[in-house]
Amino acid sequence: MVLDKGLGLETAESLMKISGEYVDYLKFGWGTSIVHEQDIIRSKVEMYQSYDITPYTGGTLFELACYQNKLDEFYQEAHDLGFTAIEVSDGSSHIPHDEKLEYIREAKKEGFEVLSEVGKKNPDLDKEITVAERVEFMKEEYKAGSSLVIVEAREGGKNIGIYDSKGNAKESEIDYILDNFDSNKILWEAPNKDQQVFFILKLGNDVNLGNISSDEITSLETLRRGLRGDTFGKI
Amino acid sequence: MVLDKGLGLETAESLMKISGEYVDYLKFGWGTSIVHEQDIIRSKVEMYQSYDITPYTGGTLFELACYQNKLDEFYQEAHDLGFTAIEVSDGSSHIPHDEKLEYIREAKKEGFEVLSEVGKKNPDLDKEITVAERVEFMKEEYKAGSSLVIVEAREGGKNIGIYDSKGNAKESEIDYILDNFDSNKILWEAPNKDQQVFFILKLGNDVNLGNISSDEITSLETLRRGLRGDTFGKI
Amino acid sequence: MVLDKGLGLETAESLMKISGEYVDYLKFGWGTSIVHEQDIIRSKVEMYQSYDITPYTGGTLFELACYQNKLDEFYQEAHDLGFTAIEVSDGSSHIPHDEKLEYIREAKKEGFEVLSEVGKKNPDLDKEITVAERVEFMKEEYKAGSSLVIVEAREGGKNIGIYDSKGNAKESEIDYILDNFDSNKILWEAPNKDQQVFFILKLGNDVNLGNISSDEITSLETLRRGLRGDTFGKI
Repeated sequence: MVLDKGLGLETAESLMKISGEYVDYLKFGWGTSIVHEQDIIRSKVEMYQSYDITPYTGGTLFELACYQNKLDEFYQEAHDLGFTAIEVSDGSSHIPHDEKLEYIREAKKEGFEVLSEVGKKNPDLDKEITVAERVEFMKEEYKAGSSLVIVEAREGGKNIGIYDSKGNAKESEIDYILDNFDSNKILWEAPNKDQQVFFILKLGNDVNLGNISSDEITSLETLRRGLRGDTFGKI
Repeated sequence: MVLDKGLGLETAESLMKISGEYVDYLKFGWGTSIVHEQDIIRSKVEMYQSYDITPYTGGTLFELACYQNKLDEFYQEAHDLGFTAIEVSDGSSHIPHDEKLEYIREAKKEGFEVLSEVGKKNPDLDKEITVAERVEFMKEEYKAGSSLVIVEAREGGKNIGIYDSKGNAKESEIDYILDNFDSNKILWEAPNKDQQVFFILKLGNDVNLGNISSDEITSLETLRRGLRGDTFGKI
Repeated sequence: MVLDKGLGLETAESLMKISGEYVDYLKFGWGTSIVHEQDIIRSKVEMYQSYDITPYTGGTLFELACYQNKLDEFYQEAHDLGFTAIEVSDGSSHIPHDEKLEYIREAKKEGFEVLSEVGKKNPDLDKEITVAERVEFMKEEYKAGSSLVIVEAREGGKNIGIYDSKGNAKESEIDYILDNFDSNKILWEAPNKDQQVFFILKLGNDVNLGNISSDEITSLETLRRGLRGDTFGKI
């Protein structure tokens, strides 16, 4: 899963021509899809889909719509723009978990594939979630209809969720998650190279990784195949 | 204000199509505009202007021309390339402040909009300027004709001017500046996300921010609108 | 020498139009050239050559071919893709130095220009190489036919070879190398700006620098010409 922070249409297409085959999902980061003209977003959505990529709206946009009681308009606009998937998250706002599960079911009924995200964007709030709770949320969200559950790490990947303040993976927490939830249903946000290497060596080269910078698509593919020093001879 | 470090014409245009409406000024960083072919610079200048953006020459180019006694050639070339604005700075060279004010007046007479910058690129020299002097310089430069006074932070934004060695804003210095100078006339260089968040929360979402990376135009706009976690619900 | 991490063809060409004249060599990083479709790699190779740039394959690809006993196929494919130069390295795998020298000679016979690299990608292994050994390797590799010997620093430039854990240049080691080997035959990997400034001020503005990010081509040229604060008035 690649994070699109606002690439131009032509630049994005040039990139997809060379490396689009290595991308499954593409997130229009945060609320970017309402900052830009609808025509250009629609063109980008179609372009990504033509490379067999599923573009989806960032969770913050869902949260804003939820917060403003405008979910119907949000679903309609996402349909109009051509999105077939959306992210449901509660990283920036407080949503009781039962309600979040209901939103996942509702979005599914609206015809969307749903990716849901567990974790808070504010590190202090994020630390209040125990790993046991995290797993419980993941299980419930998957059961409610999420195709993948995203483990939050933001764009920076430091001092949040499964990463310490230097961005190192907290292996015992990750092991706990893996012992209690199917790793194939997890999308690990792993914006930094060392995090990508960690998961590839731990879980295999087809591990689901997210928040990949658009500049790093090819680098990650070389890591997956043992074509970069960090994983050479280890795959 | 966005920093252009040498984008290709087509790539820059692709970016402006999607996010040019959020850019007011675009700086051709440092001396980049004499490193490249005149034709391509002229095309970039026109392209940016067609999106209602004011492109301008980086201050280092002015300082070099000044240092080499070639200001007339500099003004002529800037006109030939289509620039309607230039930056007048003394960050890399020593220019007595009276002389700097005279250059601002002169450039105005030559028909340019002038943005002037206060601060030194060398952190040791920069620390010698007290905040009271900084404000005094800003007042005089504005009076001499600058449309905006830029507070220097370089591309890195650390250990310089209003930022400490970790890039955190020094709030008491900023407050002193705000108490003594009209914030609408200031362009704060704020290359890092936390700095952008700081100023948006402190001064409102229409605060003038500069040295924005071309990759971060859309991210900054989402911050301004409360569409990214850092400012969600706070705008 | 610029590091291409997987730029789209059109984006790369847009960049070369504006700044290709400042690039001599362009490395297809790591194993990127087998991750992408042959057609697009061939088009990129031709495009770079049309700007008088020598594109070459990253060393990891050579090492993989070596490790898998597929050097003949590797040479053939490099020829087919239009490459006239390759990198021979032993940064990710163990290759006895005599064998490495033999590979350099062999690749020359196959018609390639050879750039060879000294250093290990794993910092712990890299530290086992004394500076005297490093120089000895460089001399032998140059004698075996390398046109330039690359001093490894990876994409990050920290805690490896001639850089300490903060990325600062270890000047005494560099002086030892310079005292014992012709600096014109060295290509210093210097991915970070401070490293570029260090070498420009130490060895002159035509020093060979490598692993330059594609975003920093113009910035580096301004540093070389004293058109950026860091080297202003010092060139």
